[in-house]
Amino acid sequence: MPPSVGWGFIGAGGVARRRMLPAARELPEVAISAVMVREQSRAEAIAAEFGARAAYQRVEDLLADAAVEAVYIATPPDVHGEQVVAAAEAGRHILLEKPMALDLPTCDRMLAAVASAGVRLAVCFPLRHAPAVRTLRDWLRAGEFGDLIYLRAQLAKWYPLEAGAWRSDPRQAGGGVVMDLGSHLLDLATWLGGPIRDLGAQIATRVWPVEVEDTAVLTLGFESGAQAILDVSFAVHDSANLIEVYGTEGYALAPSPREPTAIVRVTGEGREEVSVGRANVYAAELLDFTAAVRTGAAAQTSGDDGRQNVACLRAAYRAAARATRERPGEVE
Amino acid sequence: MPPSVGWGFIGAGGVARRRMLPAARELPEVAISAVMVREQSRAEAIAAEFGARAAYQRVEDLLADAAVEAVYIATPPDVHGEQVVAAAEAGRHILLEKPMALDLPTCDRMLAAVASAGVRLAVCFPLRHAPAVRTLRDWLRAGEFGDLIYLRAQLAKWYPLEAGAWRSDPRQAGGGVVMDLGSHLLDLATWLGGPIRDLGAQIATRVWPVEVEDTAVLTLGFESGAQAILDVSFAVHDSANLIEVYGTEGYALAPSPREPTAIVRVTGEGREEVSVGRANVYAAELLDFTAAVRTGAAAQTSGDDGRQNVACLRAAYRAAARATRERPGEVE
Repeated sequence: MPPSVGWGFIGAGGVARRRMLPAARELPEVAISAVMVREQSRAEAIAAEFGARAAYQRVEDLLADAAVEAVYIATPPDVHGEQVVAAAEAGRHILLEKPMALDLPTCDRMLAAVASAGVRLAVCFPLRHAPAVRTLRDWLRAGEFGDLIYLRAQLAKWYPLEAGAWRSDPRQAGGGVVMDLGSHLLDLATWLGGPIRDLGAQIATRVWPVEVEDTAVLTLGFESGAQAILDVSFAVHDSANLIEVYGTEGYALAPSPREPTAIVRVTGEGREEVSVGRANVYAAELLDFTAAVRTGAAAQTSGDDGRQNVACLRAAYRAAARATRERPGEVE
Repeated sequence: MPPSVGWGFIGAGGVARRRMLPAARELPEVAISAVMVREQSRAEAIAAEFGARAAYQRVEDLLADAAVEAVYIATPPDVHGEQVVAAAEAGRHILLEKPMALDLPTCDRMLAAVASAGVRLAVCFPLRHAPAVRTLRDWLRAGEFGDLIYLRAQLAKWYPLEAGAWRSDPRQAGGGVVMDLGSHLLDLATWLGGPIRDLGAQIATRVWPVEVEDTAVLTLGFESGAQAILDVSFAVHDSANLIEVYGTEGYALAPSPREPTAIVRVTGEGREEVSVGRANVYAAELLDFTAAVRTGAAAQTSGDDGRQNVACLRAAYRAAARATRERPGEVE
């Protein structure tokens, strides 16, 4: 086994604290070299909890740590741009939480900095590592359902958006549930269905006392002629996460991309339940990017994927505001 | 039991032949007094098969039959207007297949004729009689899921649209799968979610060599602020017919509105499967309208429901053509 890659973790809220750091701790390929959190006592507590050698309060100090070869950035998206540019200029490879940024010009600055520095950038779309999603994609690519007619993907749950939190602040988050869960599903849809030609969106703030939307339905037209429905919400009871693909010769329903479950698959050969098992998608992301850094292989996602995702997100908000269908990437 | 109502069946293709006439034959409340089919030998064969006393080739002859108190009209929608007006002027009550007509001016002429004649008009939306749908509606109205955030309804199947058939002819059918299956779901959505404020639509002709669309996704905004997703297709393998409702305090999934099945219901009290049984929705429609004729009670649906449905259908095609969201009933 090649030596482990030294990772610096920038930001340690939400997914970093609950998912990525616990996953990293279990992986011999991943060395938790440093963590950066603005509040000193919290930085030190997290460093201690996860065995990081160093705790920093400033991004530039973490980037100056020679043990840090790659960074995982899990900060609010409005600061992704400056942090990615700084990391690239410091020669660090970058695994970045979605959404990549709030707008396309920022994405372009990030991509230019990364290209100029010759470092790698990947954006986190963990559903690409979910066994149910990978299985559906394999089947689609193998033509097991004939031509794709449409797909539907859902991420809906009860998730309090609190006033004052960055997720509830349009200036920091760029929006609500579309930027958050919608970002995942737009990438998923692209991964399963190919390039998106246009999209429509309706958004609503139904439950939480915030400016950003807590519920949205997006409809996509793929360049192939197929369609997609994406429904996301922070305002429904419990959680529901269906993925469905419908083709001319078969269809499949995955009750949840993350749970250990079976996909219901209906084709000319009948109806069957196919077990797809379970994976730690966060560990898979870390391993995938670590391997990319070590071996030079392509990571599962790229900065271009992240930019395309932002193009779709911006198009979704334009579509919602204008009550029109919009093309990703058109000038705003 | 009051004496049976004498029914005349105008048109005996598709749903009339396969569903309504077989249902009528089993109901003592329904007397199959006459059938009207343009081709004489077919009219006589169907009359013989279902025990009708008379077979006609012309609508006016059926309407002149004194035994006919009510008519069931199952002809292509482009001729609904003239047939309903003729039936009303002949003093016959009318149960009309959906969609009511191709446009709102025709609906208005029909409603005026019916009002002037003092006869009843109902439009067939059989899903209102499906146990799963009625159960979902009861739960929603009882507030068992808190506030409705969104719902999704699907009618998707493999159904050949043949060149030359009225269903494939935009002049006769007014469109494709939206006019056909979409009409059902637009009424269902209204019945479950209330008045529709606006809607978006994307349509596609993916599989069949016809002018009309075989696949569509509609997204609705209700006046309540809730949303709906409606997906319909004649281009996907087998059939899939999910209905889902999501509220702040619970949600439910009905795998199919027509099959004998259980609704999955998730609330604060946990997850349960609730058996809803099975019903012959066509028999239920006939009985409901027969009772309305005999007793003066309101039928399950009205001509106004049919008109509102056409307003939504027209808005869907405008939305698809213009790539905008449209309000039902706006001037075209």
